[in-house]
Amino acid sequence: MDTVQLPPDYLNGAIAASAKLVDATLDAVLPQPAGRQARVQEAMRYAVMAGGKRLRPFLVRHSARLFGVDDSRSLRVGAAIEALHTYSLVHDDLPCMDDDDLRRGRPTTHIAFDEMTAVLAGDALLTIAFEILADARTHPSADVRCALIARLADASGHSGMIGGQIIDMLADKNFGVDDVIDLQRRKTGQLFEFSCEAGPILGQAAADDRAGLKAYAQDIGVVFQITDDLLDVTSTAEKTGKAVGKDADMGKQTLVTLLGVEGARAEAQKRARRAVDALGSYAAQAPELSALPFFLLDRDS
Amino acid sequence: MDTVQLPPDYLNGAIAASAKLVDATLDAVLPQPAGRQARVQEAMRYAVMAGGKRLRPFLVRHSARLFGVDDSRSLRVGAAIEALHTYSLVHDDLPCMDDDDLRRGRPTTHIAFDEMTAVLAGDALLTIAFEILADARTHPSADVRCALIARLADASGHSGMIGGQIIDMLADKNFGVDDVIDLQRRKTGQLFEFSCEAGPILGQAAADDRAGLKAYAQDIGVVFQITDDLLDVTSTAEKTGKAVGKDADMGKQTLVTLLGVEGARAEAQKRARRAVDALGSYAAQAPELSALPFFLLDRDS
Repeated sequence: MDTVQLPPDYLNGAIAASAKLVDATLDAVLPQPAGRQARVQEAMRYAVMAGGKRLRPFLVRHSARLFGVDDSRSLRVGAAIEALHTYSLVHDDLPCMDDDDLRRGRPTTHIAFDEMTAVLAGDALLTIAFEILADARTHPSADVRCALIARLADASGHSGMIGGQIIDMLADKNFGVDDVIDLQRRKTGQLFEFSCEAGPILGQAAADDRAGLKAYAQDIGVVFQITDDLLDVTSTAEKTGKAVGKDADMGKQTLVTLLGVEGARAEAQKRARRAVDALGSYAAQAPELSALPFFLLDRDS
Repeated sequence: MDTVQLPPDYLNGAIAASAKLVDATLDAVLPQPAGRQARVQEAMRYAVMAGGKRLRPFLVRHSARLFGVDDSRSLRVGAAIEALHTYSLVHDDLPCMDDDDLRRGRPTTHIAFDEMTAVLAGDALLTIAFEILADARTHPSADVRCALIARLADASGHSGMIGGQIIDMLADKNFGVDDVIDLQRRKTGQLFEFSCEAGPILGQAAADDRAGLKAYAQDIGVVFQITDDLLDVTSTAEKTGKAVGKDADMGKQTLVTLLGVEGARAEAQKRARRAVDALGSYAAQAPELSALPFFLLDRDS
C-alpha cells in the first residue's frame, strides 16, 4: 500500500495547529461565566482549557475529511468529545476515585475549586457535550445529529467508558492481559472509536466505510494506553503533567506490568502497524491518520 | 372557564397508575446488570427503582396527550426525564453536597454502594437519558428527538438545574424572595418546564402552543417547591422518606423561612390558581393537569 511519507515533526506541528482550532471552538461553545452560577462555569472552563493535545478532536477532523466533511462541523464534534473526555477526567480525579491532585501540570478541578464544584462541573461538561451535538450548526441533518448522540452515549455510558472506569476501580491483581485489554477498550478505547466513527457518520457514509476506521481506532486505543502506561513507569510528573508511578503503587495491572516494558512496547508496535493496515485505502488519503500510531509510540508526554 | 371536576382521590389513583407504567418503561430501558461492570448498572437500578410518584413523567404524558401523542412515546420521554432527575438526586446526596443518608425511605446510593459507584451511576443515568431520547423509538422524526435533547440539556445544564444546584450550595442568609424563586426555578423548575414542553415538542405543535404549558410549569414548580419546603418543616422522615428539618439546620432560606408557613401556603395557593389559568383551553382537555396543583397543595409526602 502506498503511504505518504510525512516529513519528521510534521505531525507534531499538525496536532498543535489542530489543537489551537479546537481550543477556539471550545472557547466559543463553553459558557462565559455569568450570574450566581458563574463558579460552575468557571470550573468547566478551568478543566477544559488546560491545554492538551486534543487527540480525539484530531481524529474526528481527519476521519471527517475523508468524507468531504467541512472542518466547521468536525470541530464542533471535536469540542463535544473533548468536553465529554474532560468531564471523565474531572470525575476520575475525585478523592473517591483516583484522588489525583495534578492534571495537565495544574491542580485538578476539585483542588483548584472544591469537590462539590468539580462534581457539578463534570456533570455540566457531560451535559453540554450532548447539547453541542444536538445543535443544527453541528450538522443540518437531525438524523446525523441523533446518530452522533446515540453513538457517543453508548461509547461513554454504563457499558462503555463508565463501565471501564468501574471495572478499573474494582480490578485486582489477578487481571490478565485479556482482562486489561477489555477494560481499557471500554475506559479509553470507546472514545477513540467514537472519534474515528464520527467522520463517516458526519459524511453519511455507508456502514461498511465505518468498519476500517473502527478497527483502526481500536488499535490506536491500545497503542495510546500502552504508551500512557509506559510513561507512568518511565517518565516524570514534570513531563506528563500528572502523577506518575501510580499504577505500581496501587498494585494495578497494566500491559506494562503484565508484559514488561519491552513486551508492552513490542505489543504497541504490532498494534500500530495493524492500525495502519486497517485503514486500507484511507491510509494514503489521510497521512495524518497513518502517522499517528507511530507518533504515539514516540511520545514523551 | 369550564374545568372538569374530577372525583376526590381520582388524581391519587391516576398518578399511581401512571407511575406503574413509567416503572415498567424504566425497567425496560435500564440495563440488566451483566459482566464486570454490573455494579454500576445495579446502582443505576437501585437509585431509579426506589418508587416515587414519577410526577415529571406524569406531566410529560398529559402534556403529550393534548397533542395526540401516543403513550408509548411519552413514556420513553418520561423514563428519560426520570433517569436524569434521579442522577441529580444521587449526586446531590453525595457527602460533598447535601450529605444525605436517606432518600425515598432507603439508604442513598452512596450509602448502599459507595461514593465512587454513586458518582459513576449518576453519570451513567445522565448519559442514558440522552441515549433514550436519541433512539428512534422515542419519535420517528430525528428533528423532534434533537429538539427534546437540546431542551433537556438546556434545562439541566450549567445555567439550568446544575446552575441552580451550585447557587443553592453557595446561598447565604441574605437571600430574599426573588433570589430563592430564581434559584428554585433553575434547580427544580426547569425539569418541570421540560416535562410540560415535551408534549408540544413530541406533537410538533406551534411554538405558541408551548407558551401556556411553560407558564403552567413555572407555577407548578413553585407550588412543588413550597410544599416540599413546608413538608421539611411540618412532616416526619417516616412520611417523606428523607431527612426533614434540614433547611432550618443549615440556615437555608426558603419561601417558608422568608414568608412563614402561612405566607408560603398562601403563595402556593395563588400560584396553583395561576397555573390553571395559564392552561387556558387545555384546562378542560386535561383535567389531570388542572387538578395537579391542588393535589400538590394537599400532599403529605
